[in-house]
Amino acid sequence: MSAALHSVDLIRKKRDGEELSAEEIRFLVEGAARETIPEEQLSAWLMAAFLRGLTLGELDTLTTAMRFSGEVLDHSGLGRKTVDKHSTGGVGDKTSFLVAPIAAAAGLADPMISGRALGHTGGTLDKLESIPGYRTQLSLMEMRRVLEQCGASIVGQTKNLVPADRKLYALRDRTATVESPYLICASIMSKKLAAGLDALVIDVKAGSGAFLRDEEEAQYLAALMVATGERAGTKTVAILTDMSQPLGRMAGNWVEIAESMELLRGGRDPLSEDLREISLLLAGWMIHLGGKAENAEEGRALAEQKLVDGSALRIFREMVAAQGGDVQALDAGMEFHQPRFRRDFCAERGGYFTSADCTKIGWAVQRLGAGRERAGEPVEAHAGLEMHVKLGAKIEAGQPVATLFAQEEARFAEPEHLLSEALCVGDAPVTAPPLIRRIISEENKNMFLKRGSAS
Amino acid sequence: MSAALHSVDLIRKKRDGEELSAEEIRFLVEGAARETIPEEQLSAWLMAAFLRGLTLGELDTLTTAMRFSGEVLDHSGLGRKTVDKHSTGGVGDKTSFLVAPIAAAAGLADPMISGRALGHTGGTLDKLESIPGYRTQLSLMEMRRVLEQCGASIVGQTKNLVPADRKLYALRDRTATVESPYLICASIMSKKLAAGLDALVIDVKAGSGAFLRDEEEAQYLAALMVATGERAGTKTVAILTDMSQPLGRMAGNWVEIAESMELLRGGRDPLSEDLREISLLLAGWMIHLGGKAENAEEGRALAEQKLVDGSALRIFREMVAAQGGDVQALDAGMEFHQPRFRRDFCAERGGYFTSADCTKIGWAVQRLGAGRERAGEPVEAHAGLEMHVKLGAKIEAGQPVATLFAQEEARFAEPEHLLSEALCVGDAPVTAPPLIRRIISEENKNMFLKRGSAS
Repeated sequence: MSAALHSVDLIRKKRDGEELSAEEIRFLVEGAARETIPEEQLSAWLMAAFLRGLTLGELDTLTTAMRFSGEVLDHSGLGRKTVDKHSTGGVGDKTSFLVAPIAAAAGLADPMISGRALGHTGGTLDKLESIPGYRTQLSLMEMRRVLEQCGASIVGQTKNLVPADRKLYALRDRTATVESPYLICASIMSKKLAAGLDALVIDVKAGSGAFLRDEEEAQYLAALMVATGERAGTKTVAILTDMSQPLGRMAGNWVEIAESMELLRGGRDPLSEDLREISLLLAGWMIHLGGKAENAEEGRALAEQKLVDGSALRIFREMVAAQGGDVQALDAGMEFHQPRFRRDFCAERGGYFTSADCTKIGWAVQRLGAGRERAGEPVEAHAGLEMHVKLGAKIEAGQPVATLFAQEEARFAEPEHLLSEALCVGDAPVTAPPLIRRIISEENKNMFLKRGSAS
Repeated sequence: MSAALHSVDLIRKKRDGEELSAEEIRFLVEGAARETIPEEQLSAWLMAAFLRGLTLGELDTLTTAMRFSGEVLDHSGLGRKTVDKHSTGGVGDKTSFLVAPIAAAAGLADPMISGRALGHTGGTLDKLESIPGYRTQLSLMEMRRVLEQCGASIVGQTKNLVPADRKLYALRDRTATVESPYLICASIMSKKLAAGLDALVIDVKAGSGAFLRDEEEAQYLAALMVATGERAGTKTVAILTDMSQPLGRMAGNWVEIAESMELLRGGRDPLSEDLREISLLLAGWMIHLGGKAENAEEGRALAEQKLVDGSALRIFREMVAAQGGDVQALDAGMEFHQPRFRRDFCAERGGYFTSADCTKIGWAVQRLGAGRERAGEPVEAHAGLEMHVKLGAKIEAGQPVATLFAQEEARFAEPEHLLSEALCVGDAPVTAPPLIRRIISEENKNMFLKRGSAS
């Protein structure tokens, strides 16, 4: 009877599959950020949006309203284009520690705002905090100084950035509304756009360790993010990469920093080659979209040069120092932070490493102490695991296929059980799945947007 | 990883269209009743249930768990079978004041637990409270005494009866999850089954004044309620009746009590005939299902006899007196409780009364003061309206088609506007829709259960 907006009417509209107006979506997002709409109404709308989907117009408005629900970063005067990489979350995924310094070495700036361990996936901030002294909570002024000095800064989200997402994400976690491509896209892109980026490369994981295991769903999410980013004026590319086994050799906290340092120092361990390859591809696209290379291939070549000539290593060490981290510990690599207990996990039979349930491997890493069961719990810097084989490898009975690291012996039981379920050895040789599955850009995104209620 | 139930897993299961186990549904209902599951999780589950539907098995478990979430009535030792009538809500629907005393006069007992005005529909308790002194909040002991003395007692819900429904209903109202046939069925049937009935007749309204306007949807709800009631051991019949115009002549609070008294005294106003007909049909089924007549036709004949011979009137007066009501006021009918202001609403043009938006008429009644905008607000005993025509009637230009009653003149503007939109006069003669649309019983219910996810 009144022209004022009522939450219950907006829930009903989405429930019935209708499109909400821009004003209506902004009303919901402001209500979430200011906590003027009660949680039971927000969660009913989230479930309706989960099951009914959003149109591209709704998704744009939602992302933009969330982006501007709090403070936004402004890098004007920095004198460099800002680029970033985002990953949808994986196991052993440590590309951030390579691509941020490589992009900085190529003359760009990467203001990377990262997260913590979530479910079976590791957290960039948890990994960085295994470096003694490293501060992830910088003020915007402090971050700016690190960017000016090093060209890269990896920090945690400040509480004033995208408060609507903080509210909605916590609700989604409790109401089983996480795995919606629309809601994932709005959550990721609102934060990345609030970070004031000129260009963004998104690493969308596919395979048994990805949040969206269905490849078509992952492609759809990728295309949504590209569309949303480009329309907001940020050059955006999404790359579907394989997550059917841990990326690189190590999964955990300190062990991932140590493996990254090996690569930055020019190391070429065969088990780290997949990590190196994906990192160079992602950095190559960042360099291209940031205007420092004509195309992604030239970008990759420049990225490899910055890795090989040691400039990326120098920048990463500078960034760690600028954020309070102990560079001597960093340089000591695996010698520093020795875990109290190690245990080999051996193959029961011989054959070929045919498949892995990478989500279970991720859970094993978290249960060793690298992750947390509840938000706010501390994590162990030393916990993690090292894989000794990649998919397709020939395996002898009794051969160690992984080594587990933990601070308490009691931590091994559950991860060992998980690994026994996760790692399959079969008789027939298999080929590992391709590392790079697909590249989705502004040019080809429409091919992947034809489905659901998006239009 | 644990065998304990987690709300978020149950929400996810329903979200993905899977069937919840009995244990899982009981966990949710207990969580609602004891407030151990937070509202944002309950509402996400409600929206998922709204959009995904429930299986008949889930619906049975949900209804039973809600029924036993608080205290339940036990009428053993009363020496009479207990029967009741429930209506899904209409405008001018006052059959309760007729069927309860008729059933009691036929040797049955009707422990009727009623509600208040809701949205555009009137509330039986609000109407009864327009009788000076009438107490709707009786203890179970007091209700038992009234039942023993009169055979009928109409009261409000005690707070210990079906607490799970109280919680879920309040949430549904705020989260746009009211209009689900499954959730409506569980809400109604849990309360009716907790009242300890041998038989139940449900008046499911169809047409422009019904909550479920779609007739197929109303039939489906009716069949769900019959199935749920019968499986719980209560003989149940649902009758789809017309609600495309107010039932009877009056709509409001006291005016509806007065019209009911006219019928109980043997009055035959032509504009009240639809009310009389539906009341006798409903009471006839109550009498039949309660074992006092071989079939519904014989039940109707006995009902009419109890109306005509004055025994229903005697019982209604006794019940009002037993619950503290002023019987002299009751006997005074329209002479008592004169509204301060009356205003005729006249036809702008001549023709035929072709159609009515009965929901808008209901809103007009509520805005005159008979209903409330927020729970807990007082209502006016005197407010309401009298219709002077039924659908199909020939109308002269300028003829009064309704008279409005209010305590303040300022109350008339909005209802007049609503009526001008609600009442249509056309050129071609029309036939009024049939009063009784369909009878759904244990025998034919399966015909109406073939749809959606119910199985």
